[in-house]
Amino acid sequence: MRLVYLDNNATTRIDPEILSAIIPYFSEHFGNPSSLHRWGRKAKTALRTARQQVQKLLNAKEEQEIIFTSGGTEANNTALLSALAFDPERNEIITSRVEHPAILSLCAWLQKYRDIKIHYIGVDAKGCLDIEAYRRALNPKTALVSFMYANNETGTLFPIEILSRMAHEAGSLFHSDAVQAIGKLPVSLHNSDIDMVSLSGHKLHAPKAVGVLYLRQGLKLQPLIRGGHQERGRRGGTENIPAIVGLGLAAEKAFNTISKDNAVIAALRDKLEQGLLALDSKALILGDREHRLSNTLNIAFENKDSEALLTFLDQSGIAASSGSACASGSIEPSHVLRAMRVPYPFAHGALRFSFSRENSEEDVSYVLEQMNKILKDPRSNRDIL
Amino acid sequence: MRLVYLDNNATTRIDPEILSAIIPYFSEHFGNPSSLHRWGRKAKTALRTARQQVQKLLNAKEEQEIIFTSGGTEANNTALLSALAFDPERNEIITSRVEHPAILSLCAWLQKYRDIKIHYIGVDAKGCLDIEAYRRALNPKTALVSFMYANNETGTLFPIEILSRMAHEAGSLFHSDAVQAIGKLPVSLHNSDIDMVSLSGHKLHAPKAVGVLYLRQGLKLQPLIRGGHQERGRRGGTENIPAIVGLGLAAEKAFNTISKDNAVIAALRDKLEQGLLALDSKALILGDREHRLSNTLNIAFENKDSEALLTFLDQSGIAASSGSACASGSIEPSHVLRAMRVPYPFAHGALRFSFSRENSEEDVSYVLEQMNKILKDPRSNRDIL
Repeated sequence: MRLVYLDNNATTRIDPEILSAIIPYFSEHFGNPSSLHRWGRKAKTALRTARQQVQKLLNAKEEQEIIFTSGGTEANNTALLSALAFDPERNEIITSRVEHPAILSLCAWLQKYRDIKIHYIGVDAKGCLDIEAYRRALNPKTALVSFMYANNETGTLFPIEILSRMAHEAGSLFHSDAVQAIGKLPVSLHNSDIDMVSLSGHKLHAPKAVGVLYLRQGLKLQPLIRGGHQERGRRGGTENIPAIVGLGLAAEKAFNTISKDNAVIAALRDKLEQGLLALDSKALILGDREHRLSNTLNIAFENKDSEALLTFLDQSGIAASSGSACASGSIEPSHVLRAMRVPYPFAHGALRFSFSRENSEEDVSYVLEQMNKILKDPRSNRDIL
Repeated sequence: MRLVYLDNNATTRIDPEILSAIIPYFSEHFGNPSSLHRWGRKAKTALRTARQQVQKLLNAKEEQEIIFTSGGTEANNTALLSALAFDPERNEIITSRVEHPAILSLCAWLQKYRDIKIHYIGVDAKGCLDIEAYRRALNPKTALVSFMYANNETGTLFPIEILSRMAHEAGSLFHSDAVQAIGKLPVSLHNSDIDMVSLSGHKLHAPKAVGVLYLRQGLKLQPLIRGGHQERGRRGGTENIPAIVGLGLAAEKAFNTISKDNAVIAALRDKLEQGLLALDSKALILGDREHRLSNTLNIAFENKDSEALLTFLDQSGIAASSGSACASGSIEPSHVLRAMRVPYPFAHGALRFSFSRENSEEDVSYVLEQMNKILKDPRSNRDIL
């Protein structure tokens, strides 16, 4: 059976070249970068190279702006908690209803147990932010605005340049969870109004459990994890050298190939989109087709059951999803689709296909062939389940 | 040149069998365990197997007592902060002066910024805890007692069974940073008075950046990192599957070979100890020789300079250290040696050699040969530097 992986917004396969390059950092170059001997020095050099590679991808001003973390979730937690740590007069956060659980579950806790006021800004039917509501929410108590760069479920892009400028005009810090965007879109942080950015290695063909918090030079950080002097005292714990080396290489590769990859990936995604619309002309494309990640397709089929569709696809060797991997298994439509007010008969039949540079034309043809069978199978209908 | 790595308390080389076993979890089995398709299910199964392997090594009652983290430092931070989260009447912590920076730097911050009273219990010249001072510090406001299982610099073991029982008698929780002990000593948590334990993969030939917080069944946890539903909502972030698989295998291997490995390692360590004492009969063995990790030797040479000795050793291909990797580069003797009141002319000439099952008799002979040269070289003398 052909295997087709179209769930790259959940996680990507590590790039085989990157895997080969990091294996020596498990075996011969296994030192602790804090050690002064040759094993330690080798690790320390690798750490610095990776930091510079990430700096270049982000077009950040200084390499010290790059803080390695255990992933996007840790970076998000650090950003939000740190932004609240230094000015008791600023105790409000503005975010959106469609953020990842790594933001929303922390916000819910902050609101309930730390008396932090959270403004959740809504989106329209395409997932675009209500900018007027955001403008009204900004006030002198705003400590932090945190908006995602690209939505993981629909691929919809937020206008981060405008949103971050508005935050700065109100005297607030601005953070972006850019886990889905970095490596897929060109991003330039130098001379931007973005103060903090979170990214995650395993969304761009680097290993899992490594990420970055970008922190603009001159900003204070309250560490989330305290320990030794690693990351200039901003993140304790022995550095994950093999994964960090992998993230550095993935950053370099993304920097060099983003435009080329994007064109190829967008063509594949568009072919699948057109093919699925040809199978069911009433299907809804969820998200903003004009401002969307080129790798993401979220499509909703009326009166179909996404879990049933996904089971059929899985049995055909195809990986897709119905929303965030971090909320899968839930019966309700995702919080993103609810915020977009996708009509009920569609929301329950939504599928997300997310591509990477590892996908091919043949993958798309195979998926269309299988979707043709599945959409006609009565078991995929919601009403009989 | 022969390369001899004797800095295994800083970090260990990944076991080659473990590296081979985890590579498929980077390449073909790269799924996100939260995904419902075959890639996700494969990852989820691997996660469960690893959890059970760690459970077995710790002799824990339930697999759910094992929470995977990004390492020992994160586990320590989670344990301390969580213990303070639920009962405002209990706002004191008891710990020792010789803990790892992952405990001490958090305690310093808690004391300074969170009004938490920290009792630092001292040690004697062998590094053994002042149990009477500990008894006096225990009181109805004690939220948590946190003592390390084995000291990273001297290998001295604390009597955790007695210390944890005393904590429970005073109504306090008990945590142990067992990063240096797990995999080197048999540990049994079921039916113990230990509530929380931290361990780290890279100290037992598993990858870096994976660890465990053991949390006794029935105890509440305040997560340090909030996100998706991973680890039953107790630790957000996509799971580090390859490293977790590696930690599970390392746990299984340690469980099966601890006694055999310990005997071999102790013999090597003792041979080095005897050989070095033969070279300099006035050298001091630091730590409690009766209750010490079998892999650790900390030896202090009067009027020698440990940085100079380490530089010579490094040039001879030998890795050792002068203290914790997390504080290396510092000119002062480590906080551990200061707490033990090691006389100044010795404290500045202390070397730590830490073994693993990868070391051999030939390693020891080579180190003795080089140390013989180095100890006679005038550049190793403190007074001329």
